[in-house]
Amino acid sequence: MELWSNKVAALRAAHEALLTRPNEPMAENGLSTGSVPFRLSTGIYTKYKYPILTAEHTPLEWRYDFNEQDNPFLMQRIMMNAVLNAGAILFEGKYTVVARVEGADRKSFFAVAQSPNGIDNWRFWPEPVTMPDGNNAPATNVYDMRLTRHEDGWIYGIFCVERHDETKPFDTSAATAAAGIARTKDLIHWERLDDLKSLCQQRNVVLHPEFVKCENEKMGKCYALYTRPQDGFIETGKGGGIGWTLTPDITHAEVRNERIIFSRAYHTVYEVKNGEGPAPIKTAKGWLHLAHGVRATASGLRYVLYMYMTALDDPTCVIARPSGWFLVPEGYEYIGDVMNVAFSNGWIVEEKPLSNSPLKGEGRGEVDTRKVFIYYASADTRLHVATTTVEQLLDYCLHTPEDGLTTSASVEKIKALVAKNASMSK
Amino acid sequence: MELWSNKVAALRAAHEALLTRPNEPMAENGLSTGSVPFRLSTGIYTKYKYPILTAEHTPLEWRYDFNEQDNPFLMQRIMMNAVLNAGAILFEGKYTVVARVEGADRKSFFAVAQSPNGIDNWRFWPEPVTMPDGNNAPATNVYDMRLTRHEDGWIYGIFCVERHDETKPFDTSAATAAAGIARTKDLIHWERLDDLKSLCQQRNVVLHPEFVKCENEKMGKCYALYTRPQDGFIETGKGGGIGWTLTPDITHAEVRNERIIFSRAYHTVYEVKNGEGPAPIKTAKGWLHLAHGVRATASGLRYVLYMYMTALDDPTCVIARPSGWFLVPEGYEYIGDVMNVAFSNGWIVEEKPLSNSPLKGEGRGEVDTRKVFIYYASADTRLHVATTTVEQLLDYCLHTPEDGLTTSASVEKIKALVAKNASMSK
Repeated sequence: MELWSNKVAALRAAHEALLTRPNEPMAENGLSTGSVPFRLSTGIYTKYKYPILTAEHTPLEWRYDFNEQDNPFLMQRIMMNAVLNAGAILFEGKYTVVARVEGADRKSFFAVAQSPNGIDNWRFWPEPVTMPDGNNAPATNVYDMRLTRHEDGWIYGIFCVERHDETKPFDTSAATAAAGIARTKDLIHWERLDDLKSLCQQRNVVLHPEFVKCENEKMGKCYALYTRPQDGFIETGKGGGIGWTLTPDITHAEVRNERIIFSRAYHTVYEVKNGEGPAPIKTAKGWLHLAHGVRATASGLRYVLYMYMTALDDPTCVIARPSGWFLVPEGYEYIGDVMNVAFSNGWIVEEKPLSNSPLKGEGRGEVDTRKVFIYYASADTRLHVATTTVEQLLDYCLHTPEDGLTTSASVEKIKALVAKNASMSK
Repeated sequence: MELWSNKVAALRAAHEALLTRPNEPMAENGLSTGSVPFRLSTGIYTKYKYPILTAEHTPLEWRYDFNEQDNPFLMQRIMMNAVLNAGAILFEGKYTVVARVEGADRKSFFAVAQSPNGIDNWRFWPEPVTMPDGNNAPATNVYDMRLTRHEDGWIYGIFCVERHDETKPFDTSAATAAAGIARTKDLIHWERLDDLKSLCQQRNVVLHPEFVKCENEKMGKCYALYTRPQDGFIETGKGGGIGWTLTPDITHAEVRNERIIFSRAYHTVYEVKNGEGPAPIKTAKGWLHLAHGVRATASGLRYVLYMYMTALDDPTCVIARPSGWFLVPEGYEYIGDVMNVAFSNGWIVEEKPLSNSPLKGEGRGEVDTRKVFIYYASADTRLHVATTTVEQLLDYCLHTPEDGLTTSASVEKIKALVAKNASMSK
């Protein structure tokens, strides 16, 4: 009979091995190995072999009762189901995510995890986040926090708050969604503000990092929010699109005027739904936006990531609109609790530039080589990282052709590229 | 040109190798290898590496015409699609399932398979079950038999019977579902009784193994059925929940009064649908129930298994309600004809107790170390086994926290466990 203490030691060793497993860039330009499909380098970003956080990364103390008398079988008393959509921030020099953790009971909550390099050795803090309900009705579920380090000095977390739709008492899956707002200085103590007041349901609400002039200029500076007005979860109804609204008081935020800055469109990757991902990254050439788009398939919805850029002096004015998806599920990323989903609500831009840019001094003007860590989840099950640089993202956004919205337009773009390549060999 | 007889020999050898392949416990506490994800031991049950039955396990004689003149290409004349949801029973000392076998034509039927150890070396009987239609209208499809060895001396099989909904002649996928009832002594000859009479459609009907006092005490002892009233297949409508009904005559069974003993609930794993799995296991501490719960996702429904317990003297009174799922699809189990499904309608409890319980003589009272074999299907495609003991299932049911139904309640439960673990190290 195996000693209980030996079982504990084996468990702890296995957990530690998982947490400290080195990550490595996913093979490119090579034949498939195992479940990793063949892929050529996109030049746009690098994916990594292992997810950075999974349910099995959560602390053992959350799951096992380590008292032998009380737990003779060394059972998991509280099982974890998934670690997914995470807000992300550089915090005290560490790569930091506030992940959505979902228990076996389907309730999700937030938990902070940190890594010294953004790629591996991620470790959760000892306790999940205690998110106060504040003046709001208690939430059944909270998820998908966007973190914004705002110029007012606070770190804001905006997240989706779901409650049962009491207008449909017999429909046990009818939910209403609102945007919960909280702020913190230390990621431990969170001040819960009023939920975003809005006539329609809101998901995917994101705080812009800078103040913006209010519409009524007498009111001075406003907070700016990316919104995603909608009617229901699966069907977005007449609403939809990425919206923009200004609110003078973030402690009582309200959607008064809402402008759609990025609409859905027929037969695109954002045909059925779209929504802002993390807060945009400011660059000399404009704001870099990461968003998700959704289309319907015979096996359900497909969620992919896409990008766009807005003008530096007007974050509502789209200046670059690369066509199609930017990042999609591949290989085992397809598979999980909700198939065919890539989703991101967090990225980190490094402060110091890289020194080894291939573009420096090549006459392309100033080069922004800050490294970018994109945290994306696959299949609503696990969290991954992809790395790139600001310069690569700018190059991608500014030089990928726009969507012509017809098959012929797409063919003409390909033929133009073929012709361009052919002209070089002459 | 390969000799036909050599091809037959190779086919038979490959089939025999599949049938006799030793099964082995799934790796736990180890880093992932191939498509098997990393998993820590739950302490609750052990899954196994290989499915126990698949379409390829069905007898070759069901599929090939072994007359060389008539079948020169050694073709499969009748192809099999899947082996899934199985009732299970110890029969004449052998681990026995009555599996749902589905042909390439989508029609499913029942077939008996047996194993000497419950884990591997499963072998189908030479012919599928001939299930008579009895006095009932012919069924288009039958599936998901629950086996109950009733104290009246019969082995009952209750299963779902589907027929085309003749009120919708132009809708070729509209079905009506009823509970078919049959009984046997030898698993070969089945006496078909009347279908369960019910005002609404019924699926997942299960016979309780013991007689129960009738509501009208003058009527003496009644048969008790777990039911799952519903309106349609995907939408359970206002119906739903696991019900309970008593009927004096099993040969003309009828739902008169139906009480819901386990309801659906918002934002749980049984939010959209739930239903009883196999007949419950009787223990000194109450009845152990295995059930399935369904929730909606953007990629379709997700089926998981959960457990609950009812009082020994009142099987309608729920005494333990561990939160969340008990068993879910993992790794390749996610993938198949119907993604993201774990389903069970059969388990076997061994009669002789194990001798090596870690709990014996530890002051926890009498310990029930009977081994339990849980037969579950993944993705409506293949059948698996997970092994545990009655004592582990009791420990799981009685010591897993209940669902608090909000994210804050879930976080508080985790924090309480963290505090309990922290207090030990002081």
